Amino acid sequence: MENIVYLDNSATTKPCKKAIEYMTRSLEENWGNPSSLHSMGIRAEEELVSCKEACASLLSCRSDEIYFTGSGTEANNLAITGGIRARAKRGNRIVTTSTEHPSVLNTVKQFEEQGFEVIYLKPEKNGAISKDSIKKAITDKTIFVSIMLVNNETGAINPVAYAKEVIKSVNSPALLHCDAVQGFGKLEVKPSQLGVDLLTFSGHKIHGPKGIGVLYRKKGLHILPQILGGNQQEGLRSGTEPMPLICGLNGALSELRDIKGEYENVKSLWNYAKDRLSSFVKINSTDEGLPFILNISVVGYRSETILHFLDSKGIFVSSGSACAKGELSHTLTAMGLKKNEIDSAIRISFSRYNTREDVDRLAVGLKEATEKLKRV
Amino acid sequence: MENIVYLDNSATTKPCKKAIEYMTRSLEENWGNPSSLHSMGIRAEEELVSCKEACASLLSCRSDEIYFTGSGTEANNLAITGGIRARAKRGNRIVTTSTEHPSVLNTVKQFEEQGFEVIYLKPEKNGAISKDSIKKAITDKTIFVSIMLVNNETGAINPVAYAKEVIKSVNSPALLHCDAVQGFGKLEVKPSQLGVDLLTFSGHKIHGPKGIGVLYRKKGLHILPQILGGNQQEGLRSGTEPMPLICGLNGALSELRDIKGEYENVKSLWNYAKDRLSSFVKINSTDEGLPFILNISVVGYRSETILHFLDSKGIFVSSGSACAKGELSHTLTAMGLKKNEIDSAIRISFSRYNTREDVDRLAVGLKEATEKLKRV
Repeated sequence: MENIVYLDNSATTKPCKKAIEYMTRSLEENWGNPSSLHSMGIRAEEELVSCKEACASLLSCRSDEIYFTGSGTEANNLAITGGIRARAKRGNRIVTTSTEHPSVLNTVKQFEEQGFEVIYLKPEKNGAISKDSIKKAITDKTIFVSIMLVNNETGAINPVAYAKEVIKSVNSPALLHCDAVQGFGKLEVKPSQLGVDLLTFSGHKIHGPKGIGVLYRKKGLHILPQILGGNQQEGLRSGTEPMPLICGLNGALSELRDIKGEYENVKSLWNYAKDRLSSFVKINSTDEGLPFILNISVVGYRSETILHFLDSKGIFVSSGSACAKGELSHTLTAMGLKKNEIDSAIRISFSRYNTREDVDRLAVGLKEATEKLKRV
Repeated sequence: MENIVYLDNSATTKPCKKAIEYMTRSLEENWGNPSSLHSMGIRAEEELVSCKEACASLLSCRSDEIYFTGSGTEANNLAITGGIRARAKRGNRIVTTSTEHPSVLNTVKQFEEQGFEVIYLKPEKNGAISKDSIKKAITDKTIFVSIMLVNNETGAINPVAYAKEVIKSVNSPALLHCDAVQGFGKLEVKPSQLGVDLLTFSGHKIHGPKGIGVLYRKKGLHILPQILGGNQQEGLRSGTEPMPLICGLNGALSELRDIKGEYENVKSLWNYAKDRLSSFVKINSTDEGLPFILNISVVGYRSETILHFLDSKGIFVSSGSACAKGELSHTLTAMGLKKNEIDSAIRISFSRYNTREDVDRLAVGLKEATEKLKRV
């Protein structure tokens, strides 16, 4: 694991030292059940509260607006299913984008099959949703709007806050949800500034452990729970809380001390990578996107072939989003890329731990791939 | 933490060394996303398969019958909601018991509110459901039966396998689900012997980490998913798999080498505790129950008062099940205990790590409580 170049940070990240340290402490020293009435339960509950406070501090929200789930996917399901079911009597229209993560698209699709009208906004050439399309889609019969902050395949940033303006201006009863999984920890993400009622992020995309998602729910907002049981987390998500993961997330959050500085470093890395690669690959991401993601097409070579070639050199990238294993990218399709560009797309995704040397090795590897591999 | 007497193992258990060791390895060395196509993804997937095989080996089932969830609660929700929705066209009757865990009761209740007929079987005085009541309840219009293996408050063991006989004999289309959270790892639990279609257990009750549940689903059986997304786990439970927890569970399973021997040791401890306590407390659990749980009533003293008194001596017990914080025990009520017996009930729950010295300290602490505390 020493000499690898890991450039697949949008799929998952390496757990940071603090995450592992906090988890170990939870497992060895503070392993009580937070629902237990005795002091071991109370001590465990203190860890729970501490992590909620850390989330709240980063989001500039209240700690009682934070809920823990088993994944970003579960958090998206809970926000969408819980929100739509709570608003179903007030309208029939749902607005989302065709570039959402499958945990949003497949959840919304279920409501479409039940008779709801779902509008899927298509991205512009830069991968982002236009304000104009948002304005046209949201009506006073719209009950739910779900727009991701940062697209997981291209890094395109959507004008989420604008959706709130439209909701207000047309007097829509719609709740606004934002899947911020790819943006949280990289951009300043504040629900109040975005105007969202519900927002989700995931631990393992920010150097925390896999298996924990976070839902921000605006204080006082009623949504229906999806998992029922012992009424943990105010009944919104029953089940013994995943304490080791909550502590691990808390450790990862404690390392998010300089989001702006890290953004600048990664932006510089993104520019460097673009400069090194643009002579022999097509760049699909744009300058306005989040610099943690660089989507390229190595036209003439299949993504999987490139991926495996790089893998053999200890360089790890993605042929799309890890969550859409095997399927043609719905985002790149929606962006209007040609089939041979989609078939040869590679997602490079950075973390704060990447360096220019990593980009150099990637550039050499990609160049070698185009020389040694057969063109399709 | 050195000198504590932890007798609340049905609420949660101390993670064992192997669980922590496997988790640390997953976090430090093998932190890839199992959905990633590159070799880091493949290595992570190998851990996933390894844990499924360990579950399958203990359950004597196939590894492709194993699914991971975020808790025992989620596994129960998935089994019940997924099963009932898949069978809804074949009948309207659901059979369960009044002594189930809230994750079963509250899930079933939702279907009752939608118009399903739900039969709640009441326990006999020993806390277990009688064969006779099971026979009378299951009809050819029954689509789902959910009976827990071991009651979490008393240790009473239910005749789950008998329910399968009845389902067959009346030609019922019912699926049989068993919440085996309190039985797995303590009894030999084999879905084929129990005749169940769906079975659930939880990692943190067997010295694994909190945040992981397991669902056994019989090969070929169709149930509907509850969390939608990237189609991980064959689409039955989408979301990036909680790899650190899966590895931790695998570590905990690797320590379950002598279930029968540990059962005998704990049985001897249970007998010893009963002998030491029965002169001054009422014993609510019976000899036929699982010896990992001993429910008693210290009549004349409120449970919480006793609990906090013992807590101050470093002795940890439960005033009921941790999942039903604050509510009157539905199980003890259903067993026909008097109000003053329920109000004074204490659950003592053992693990393989408890000793006779622990029981001695508990007995001394309880005796002291009855001498020093005011009677209600």
